[in-house]
Amino acid sequence: MKFFKYTLTFVLSIFIFSCDNNVNTENFDELEFEINLIELDSNRIKNDLLKLASFGNTELEGNERIAYSDYNVDALAWLKTELEALNLNVSIDFAGNLIAVRDGINNNLKPIGFGSHIDCVPNGGHYDGQIGVLAGLEIFRVLNENNIKTNHPLELIVFSNEEGGVFGSRALAGVITDETMDVMTASGLTNFQGVNKLGGNSDRIFEVAREYPAFHSFIELHIEQGAVLEEANLDIGIVQGIVGLRWWDVEITGFTNHAGTTPMDRRNDAMLAASEFTLAVNEIVNNLEGTHVGTVGRIQAFPGVPNVIAGKVILSLELRDLSNEKLDILFDKINKRSKQISKKYGTPFEFRRLSATGEPALTSITVQNIIEKVSEKLKLTSIRMPSGAGHDAQEMALIAPTGMIFIPSKNGISHSADEYSTISQVQNGYTTLLHSILAIDNLNQLD
Amino acid sequence: MKFFKYTLTFVLSIFIFSCDNNVNTENFDELEFEINLIELDSNRIKNDLLKLASFGNTELEGNERIAYSDYNVDALAWLKTELEALNLNVSIDFAGNLIAVRDGINNNLKPIGFGSHIDCVPNGGHYDGQIGVLAGLEIFRVLNENNIKTNHPLELIVFSNEEGGVFGSRALAGVITDETMDVMTASGLTNFQGVNKLGGNSDRIFEVAREYPAFHSFIELHIEQGAVLEEANLDIGIVQGIVGLRWWDVEITGFTNHAGTTPMDRRNDAMLAASEFTLAVNEIVNNLEGTHVGTVGRIQAFPGVPNVIAGKVILSLELRDLSNEKLDILFDKINKRSKQISKKYGTPFEFRRLSATGEPALTSITVQNIIEKVSEKLKLTSIRMPSGAGHDAQEMALIAPTGMIFIPSKNGISHSADEYSTISQVQNGYTTLLHSILAIDNLNQLD
Repeated sequence: MKFFKYTLTFVLSIFIFSCDNNVNTENFDELEFEINLIELDSNRIKNDLLKLASFGNTELEGNERIAYSDYNVDALAWLKTELEALNLNVSIDFAGNLIAVRDGINNNLKPIGFGSHIDCVPNGGHYDGQIGVLAGLEIFRVLNENNIKTNHPLELIVFSNEEGGVFGSRALAGVITDETMDVMTASGLTNFQGVNKLGGNSDRIFEVAREYPAFHSFIELHIEQGAVLEEANLDIGIVQGIVGLRWWDVEITGFTNHAGTTPMDRRNDAMLAASEFTLAVNEIVNNLEGTHVGTVGRIQAFPGVPNVIAGKVILSLELRDLSNEKLDILFDKINKRSKQISKKYGTPFEFRRLSATGEPALTSITVQNIIEKVSEKLKLTSIRMPSGAGHDAQEMALIAPTGMIFIPSKNGISHSADEYSTISQVQNGYTTLLHSILAIDNLNQLD
Repeated sequence: MKFFKYTLTFVLSIFIFSCDNNVNTENFDELEFEINLIELDSNRIKNDLLKLASFGNTELEGNERIAYSDYNVDALAWLKTELEALNLNVSIDFAGNLIAVRDGINNNLKPIGFGSHIDCVPNGGHYDGQIGVLAGLEIFRVLNENNIKTNHPLELIVFSNEEGGVFGSRALAGVITDETMDVMTASGLTNFQGVNKLGGNSDRIFEVAREYPAFHSFIELHIEQGAVLEEANLDIGIVQGIVGLRWWDVEITGFTNHAGTTPMDRRNDAMLAASEFTLAVNEIVNNLEGTHVGTVGRIQAFPGVPNVIAGKVILSLELRDLSNEKLDILFDKINKRSKQISKKYGTPFEFRRLSATGEPALTSITVQNIIEKVSEKLKLTSIRMPSGAGHDAQEMALIAPTGMIFIPSKNGISHSADEYSTISQVQNGYTTLLHSILAIDNLNQLD
């Protein structure tokens, strides 16, 4: 789409949305506000992406800017310089989060927050997290250039170590522990060591915790990391929430026996039961309507040699959805089916729930509504959708009415050198974020 | 069954057997011979088993007499003493095989061979191999006690390192190489080191190789290691051959993707393809009539974590049957099915044939017929069956008309402390072997 300067006024009337996934419907007061739509400079957007990519870019176009690496430190230093040049109040908090604050007309109001992360997985890509940070930089620039003053202060946060457990946002949400500090990360440093390297202070890290509502609102712009938007040829994903995730270890007990001397009808083959189970998970997940997903990604057979019938198989079961109730229904169906499979092959099943699981984190309906209306006025097509991946916004939802904006990912690929979105798609994201912030700035209080 | 002395004469007439598994039918000349049925002493059988078990018996009743261990050496020394006391010509050959020869009436005739092994897998059992050796000891005793002279010399062979690759019998068959000598075994010694420890001579090992027909006949008595005889309540298994074995690594290529952000209909999940393949192998093997078996015992998913859709799965496929033609048919069906599965999930299959495979080794029909007739006259029930496991007899079939006698294994268990056959079942095996040897002794020449 083409950008041009115009002024529009629109009225956010009473919306009553009937969302699936059991997200509560909600209405809010009628509000009026203006947006001075600002054309963004696609060359500047591109140059920022290239500049940030230069910190950790590999020969194969991958990204080695893992959390706490030297690349991470250097990229933060560059960002700090860019942000300070815009007359912002820039600092690194005790958790290693880079924070840039722009004064509002009334600094007693809670800030509007936005941001994401610049660290990546080993050999990662150049878009995941990074566009959410660079959008903040560009938004500060254009607000300055256009002499726009917001009512609320604006706060860009570059969260530390997102890929290693959404560390910086969890610190802000007050949900890290001493144990979290000792976790070894991909850099070879613990979080304890890493935050100090970034300029934080591990001794005082628990002081960064904030309480709800610490922000007027918080919005994260991010690539989708899936192919829903691309497939449907849509510009913007309005994130309804970050899906809850449940993990189980499923242990299937058969009878270890000689693969040569044991006739086919005398076997309790745990591999057969595991195979039927894996297909059943897929079938059950597909047969229930919705955006939930279910995956068996890990499997081990014991003793695990070609000439022995497996006496034991341990596999992983992962289910994700926005609704805990849906997760309950899915697991109940899978559990019931496992009993039939167990009976058929004489192979008992045991499900062990793992603690590495997350509760669904719903975003603010008001923020969703604003993003949708902004997209509409920008003539961008949009869809409400869950986020299948975890994000800093998930933690920020604990301390702020939160929203999240997705742009398309080419082929749904992420965590790879092949991660890609076009500059036009990135620009759509920046523009939607900018005008959502400005629209929210005119609201008195969010849910 | 009760044993009593009697004399029986039976005529082996022209047998025409129509065997399945494409074993050739055959007839042989009418022959007459006598058997002086000898009652065996069940206490002596039991005591021999207990004595041999004492070399390597563990607290949990398992057996640690692995090849080349001190237990192996000590047990051979005990056996040597017992055999020498019977006025036999006892020696250890260059390959570490213990060989005991009893003169025949005509020592120019080829010997009738029998024997098995006394080594076991780590934490193995007390029957696998061992009864075939102790049967030889008992047979020599009773022949001496009853002053029976055979026409042919008799030769008991206690093969070295059966569990680590039927080493001793392969040396006799002339199919070992320098590479075989360097193979590391469970004892921590190479075959090179191990044979010297047993009293062999690694420098001259290739001299032990013999050529077909090195024996008038060779017969191995062994536990079934399956549950066919026990299930059918039969006394004796007449082994038609040792099944051929083919191994493949099957590599299934999907597309690695985020298990949270990738919708169910956008996946190329190698785990789903692997599961459907594993069930298909089982179905195809079951749907074809016969005693063949097929197993998927090893599986690995890549990257193999709960929150990533597997982009690759490598699993093992093993097929066993007496007939190469049957193995061809099975693989052809499996290969065809894999193409359908590949299409369904968008996951190409690649089959890599592994070299660790064996050709079917058929036993002599004449020896099978004799064992069957002997069983019948002893009022023992029998069945012709393949051996799903490899044995020294498989290698001996290269240099002798070979036969093999199975006795039942409790629950089909072997390679475990739970390996068990009753003394009565063991005694049936000894008696059948003894009288088969005597019957064969009256034949001029076997096929």
